[in-house]
Amino acid sequence: MKLRLGMIGGGQGAFIGAVHRLAAALDGMYELTAGAFSSDAEKSRATGVSLGLSADRVYASYQELIEQEKQRPEADRVQVITIVTPNHLHFEPARMALENGFHVVLDKPMTFSLAEAKQLEQVAATSSKKLCLTHTYSGYPMVKEARQLVANATIGKVRKAYVEYPQGWLSNFEEGGDNKQAAWRTDPARSGIAGSMGDIGTHAFNLLEYVTGLQVTQLCADINIVVAGRQLDDDGSVLLKLSNGASAVLTASQIAAGEENNIRIRVYGELGGLEWQQADANTLQVKWLDKPTEIRRTGTGYVSSFAQHNSRTPAGHPEGYLEAFANLYRNFALTLQAELSGEPASPEALDYPSIAEGVRGMAFIESVIASGKSDKKWTDFLV
Amino acid sequence: MKLRLGMIGGGQGAFIGAVHRLAAALDGMYELTAGAFSSDAEKSRATGVSLGLSADRVYASYQELIEQEKQRPEADRVQVITIVTPNHLHFEPARMALENGFHVVLDKPMTFSLAEAKQLEQVAATSSKKLCLTHTYSGYPMVKEARQLVANATIGKVRKAYVEYPQGWLSNFEEGGDNKQAAWRTDPARSGIAGSMGDIGTHAFNLLEYVTGLQVTQLCADINIVVAGRQLDDDGSVLLKLSNGASAVLTASQIAAGEENNIRIRVYGELGGLEWQQADANTLQVKWLDKPTEIRRTGTGYVSSFAQHNSRTPAGHPEGYLEAFANLYRNFALTLQAELSGEPASPEALDYPSIAEGVRGMAFIESVIASGKSDKKWTDFLV
Amino acid sequence: MKLRLGMIGGGQGAFIGAVHRLAAALDGMYELTAGAFSSDAEKSRATGVSLGLSADRVYASYQELIEQEKQRPEADRVQVITIVTPNHLHFEPARMALENGFHVVLDKPMTFSLAEAKQLEQVAATSSKKLCLTHTYSGYPMVKEARQLVANATIGKVRKAYVEYPQGWLSNFEEGGDNKQAAWRTDPARSGIAGSMGDIGTHAFNLLEYVTGLQVTQLCADINIVVAGRQLDDDGSVLLKLSNGASAVLTASQIAAGEENNIRIRVYGELGGLEWQQADANTLQVKWLDKPTEIRRTGTGYVSSFAQHNSRTPAGHPEGYLEAFANLYRNFALTLQAELSGEPASPEALDYPSIAEGVRGMAFIESVIASGKSDKKWTDFLV
Amino acid sequence: MKLRLGMIGGGQGAFIGAVHRLAAALDGMYELTAGAFSSDAEKSRATGVSLGLSADRVYASYQELIEQEKQRPEADRVQVITIVTPNHLHFEPARMALENGFHVVLDKPMTFSLAEAKQLEQVAATSSKKLCLTHTYSGYPMVKEARQLVANATIGKVRKAYVEYPQGWLSNFEEGGDNKQAAWRTDPARSGIAGSMGDIGTHAFNLLEYVTGLQVTQLCADINIVVAGRQLDDDGSVLLKLSNGASAVLTASQIAAGEENNIRIRVYGELGGLEWQQADANTLQVKWLDKPTEIRRTGTGYVSSFAQHNSRTPAGHPEGYLEAFANLYRNFALTLQAELSGEPASPEALDYPSIAEGVRGMAFIESVIASGKSDKKWTDFLV
Repeated sequence: MKLRLGMIGGGQGAFIGAVHRLAAALDGMYELTAGAFSSDAEKSRATGVSLGLSADRVYASYQELIEQEKQRPEADRVQVITIVTPNHLHFEPARMALENGFHVVLDKPMTFSLAEAKQLEQVAATSSKKLCLTHTYSGYPMVKEARQLVANATIGKVRKAYVEYPQGWLSNFEEGGDNKQAAWRTDPARSGIAGSMGDIGTHAFNLLEYVTGLQVTQLCADINIVVAGRQLDDDGSVLLKLSNGASAVLTASQIAAGEENNIRIRVYGELGGLEWQQADANTLQVKWLDKPTEIRRTGTGYVSSFAQHNSRTPAGHPEGYLEAFANLYRNFALTLQAELSGEPASPEALDYPSIAEGVRGMAFIESVIASGKSDKKWTDFLV
Repeated sequence: MKLRLGMIGGGQGAFIGAVHRLAAALDGMYELTAGAFSSDAEKSRATGVSLGLSADRVYASYQELIEQEKQRPEADRVQVITIVTPNHLHFEPARMALENGFHVVLDKPMTFSLAEAKQLEQVAATSSKKLCLTHTYSGYPMVKEARQLVANATIGKVRKAYVEYPQGWLSNFEEGGDNKQAAWRTDPARSGIAGSMGDIGTHAFNLLEYVTGLQVTQLCADINIVVAGRQLDDDGSVLLKLSNGASAVLTASQIAAGEENNIRIRVYGELGGLEWQQADANTLQVKWLDKPTEIRRTGTGYVSSFAQHNSRTPAGHPEGYLEAFANLYRNFALTLQAELSGEPASPEALDYPSIAEGVRGMAFIESVIASGKSDKKWTDFLV
Repeated sequence: MKLRLGMIGGGQGAFIGAVHRLAAALDGMYELTAGAFSSDAEKSRATGVSLGLSADRVYASYQELIEQEKQRPEADRVQVITIVTPNHLHFEPARMALENGFHVVLDKPMTFSLAEAKQLEQVAATSSKKLCLTHTYSGYPMVKEARQLVANATIGKVRKAYVEYPQGWLSNFEEGGDNKQAAWRTDPARSGIAGSMGDIGTHAFNLLEYVTGLQVTQLCADINIVVAGRQLDDDGSVLLKLSNGASAVLTASQIAAGEENNIRIRVYGELGGLEWQQADANTLQVKWLDKPTEIRRTGTGYVSSFAQHNSRTPAGHPEGYLEAFANLYRNFALTLQAELSGEPASPEALDYPSIAEGVRGMAFIESVIASGKSDKKWTDFLV
Repeated sequence: MKLRLGMIGGGQGAFIGAVHRLAAALDGMYELTAGAFSSDAEKSRATGVSLGLSADRVYASYQELIEQEKQRPEADRVQVITIVTPNHLHFEPARMALENGFHVVLDKPMTFSLAEAKQLEQVAATSSKKLCLTHTYSGYPMVKEARQLVANATIGKVRKAYVEYPQGWLSNFEEGGDNKQAAWRTDPARSGIAGSMGDIGTHAFNLLEYVTGLQVTQLCADINIVVAGRQLDDDGSVLLKLSNGASAVLTASQIAAGEENNIRIRVYGELGGLEWQQADANTLQVKWLDKPTEIRRTGTGYVSSFAQHNSRTPAGHPEGYLEAFANLYRNFALTLQAELSGEPASPEALDYPSIAEGVRGMAFIESVIASGKSDKKWTDFLV
């Protein structure tokens, strides 16, 4: 049976709401059943209609959604609530959903502030419900393959990592026009203390910790507002120390004119190196000191169970961003279904980002902004 | 409202049935409502259960599906029947579906023989129902961009084209083991008179005619059975003449060891050239005599309305095979919805492969196999 | 000691003469000592001066060069004569040089006709002097690696090969203007019976036979004159049968608008496949049925002795066309030096194209043009 | 007439000496005439013999070379002395050569210390002789194209740059064995205060300043010794501030296991971005906010005069590292020949790295090592 899904946010014109719907739909494991798509009741209704929802399952606010759905019979009410609002509207709906017995899918960064993140962590700790945080890039099969190759010590102890997320779409003062995506992302009241570091820096940070299995312990950041008039950082470069003593570099920019979204990671160990980038998402390069580079590919028989589990087609049929996103939804659904059936979920199903990754992401944001303001070279990573 | 979809074929272990379900699900425009997933009633039932269908909508045969669904109230019965069986089981279900008032999605090649294709063309001509043939590669946004650049004469009159589809998966005698995909594709009783030419050669052929907007008029084929014991061709190379006097080369192989599915097309006109390949599906290279090559990309603002219509995310979020496949389903759904609402469908929605492409595909198969047996250099394309 | 080199052809404005001089200079194994750079005595002199030659070593004709140099003391006269004239001026100078005791470097195709090639073969058979034919692409280290991987049966018995040489520079009627390169290449009186097939088709043919170690036995050609007014073919596509029963496809075009010179070969055996292209010349892809693709690279420790011998720098310092060309000169010099010193030349040094390759190249030209005119599908390869 | 060249260093087994000889030979503008190839007189002699030099032009020390050559008649003595010794043996030979009337080609980094560099700057200022510093990567045609596109404001004011030089060859303790290249580069007595930062970091730094036309004003470095037992840094990452207020990131590593020498630069301006990497050296990507990315290529008609001047073959014939290196030698020779002939040298010929770049390179080394030891975030660039 499909899981019944309610959505908070994602009204017309929203980018990420539509992506969540596509990702949830792909594998047929969710049925979009209810929504509070906008704080404007009329807009919410219009979106709900366009999505084919029953009028009585379209709500004017997230509070209403949670309260009304809770009163429905268990077999009818939504089981999972997905929250795709701007950052300042993450914590309250997530808290309320968990406290009222709903599983949660939450867009990143997890909250508006680290304090909120820690609060949510406590809420979750006392709730029987689960949370999936949509750090999309960890859903790619070849990212999972990379993580396995590090975890299995195939490339030896990690010594150096580079992670980058270059974008060019904020090269001009987009927030001065009618670009809704730009408007909230550059607004401290909705985005939080960080711009680029929160929006894409956290993705890069998550990818770094996910693939290496290490934690950032110190960082040294150069944080910039490049475009005149902008209120939040649109560019940053960060030196990092990792928990095993290795070092790393993280860069994220929204003023890298002409760049799309080619998030990329390279990890070097004692024996070899790994390289993955979104622009060639179905390939993982594995480099060796004294042997030919290997091109590992999605959909082949030789990749790890984690990579195989997260692809749907034979090698050579490219899977992309929506499939990676769908992998998060699918693994979360498999985990919830296992729970419903009383079976243990597989390690592959359990491999989705959650509260812990969300807290670290928020700690990254606050650490990196603090470091950006500091004259000291190294700032300890907040925990 | 979602279109109610019934599926014929696609039981457990089938590759393309699962792909059709993913593609139909992605955009939330279809609801899988009924199925005859296997000619084995028990297997059909098991598949239906695993997909969450009501037991009374799972049938033991395609005839039963069509007959029973027809008797349901119009607001309840399936509206579209998708046929994902091996080639020898395309014609009868498709004919019966059309004649009984169902729209049809049909996997390629359209039928078992050209004669069947022409019969189906006649059935369709007298039916008010529509048919979509899943030539997947024409669903890629950058393939559509290529077609537009030719149609708009941006590269000038076409002079030469190369299209290729290399695979390696039949390098060994896979049909000797328990590979179901290999078994039927290499069996003349189920696949028809062609192996590689029918399975992937028709894709290459369709891509060639779709992008160039030209028709093949003559061909000269070298058709081979490379693997010992195999009954159908697993490799072929074809010289072609096009309707404007240009020439082309088509190659398709299933014994190109180590190749995945990198179907690729290059078209050269008087002014410039185009190159697209599935392995880098979101890129179209546009080459010029005296200017830098352009890298056109999915999700950008400068591509044609056809390319924009067929992508879902901003540039740099790769879309792949499932999205291309989903574009066929989505455009077919948009066309059917337009009809239901009495509105004209947009040119972008109407841009899906149908009966005409299916007849030409079957003519290609019969022409290319005839040419392969001929001592003459040029064989006229059958029409 | 450097070998003393005389050049026939290569006056100002000539493309390939300059390339020969760069290639001969790179490794410091030749000293350009004499030349008959043009049939116009004044032009020859001017080129000689600009190259820093003594006035008395610059000649007004190739006959004069050969006769005069022959009369010089052995320790002073040129030892190798390099012939870089248009095709119709290959045979006579080469014959005369060999008969008068000079080694020869000769640009491809070897002669104007197959008959001339066979005559030259006889001259060479009775001469103690050697000839090197500059099929440049066989000089690339990764092409040599490919040949070794086939020869060692690493990819198993060859089943299929594709070779292509797309260019766009003759997309317009260049010979109508003052393009000297275009003028002679499109002129039957200077180029011979073939245009594109002679100029680049022979390169593709040589690469095919060199890498596979097989011989073409039959072919089926589609030969075209695409640009109005042109006298020789500017495009062709050829189906081929190889001596072990495998099949191949060769395409060469000079009207592939926007293409540079990306000659490319792919060879598939029972166990794996190889891919090399000039645009990424330091890489050889080795593809496997069930393992990751390997990226073999110039300058590494794991490649064959043939690949290592033909590169000069550590991995990652790209070597290109001039180095590949220089490898022919270098190996020829090593062979000649070995002879002078009475030592056997190494297998790596002896690995340069010579008379046999030249005869086969001319046979290809005559076979492919004959096939282009034939109504029969298969034409036997002339021998 | 060829310029007579004397070489200091570059005995058998040396990597860079051989590269200098190839680069000097390629265009036939230099004649290697004399050498002091080793401080071991016998080894020097053996190298000289193997290179075909007269015995009386092979010297046992650089002092001897300079003194003896100076006493030769002007028409006979070497005109240019190229110094290819380890860093601690750069300053003295260069100073002595300049002071005794010889032009100098000098390998990078220019000297052992910044103090030496400034001294050499003074020597050069009072000498009539010229110096060329072999920062190879600035010799690539597409690097020159990049510089022109910035200089012409084609991409607008520079906002961000990334430059990287990853290598893996020092992943193990190579200096513990008989690897001569590793031995001196990791030895503070021969290499100076920096390892990776001096050997490859200076290349990256030079590339950054060359392409952007900007100067580094501040930096913040994370400098590491990763391999146990090593005495000098083998890895470093640096945040930088540029003279126009833009920021940049420079990374260089010798422990990036599996990496070859893919030095790469990306520069982003207000209007667009540039990307170049050695692994695809004949391509410059030019990215735009709202147009397709352009692929600019070596050897085309549309690139700048600087790019055209520095290539030798038509588009599609790849030129590589040796050609880039040869461009430095060629431009230096053209400049010297212009001087000899009393003509002004062209801007393209004058575009080679010299003393100023050498001083900045040494300032980079001392600044970056100082920053690496500092607790402060930003260290002013030493000048």
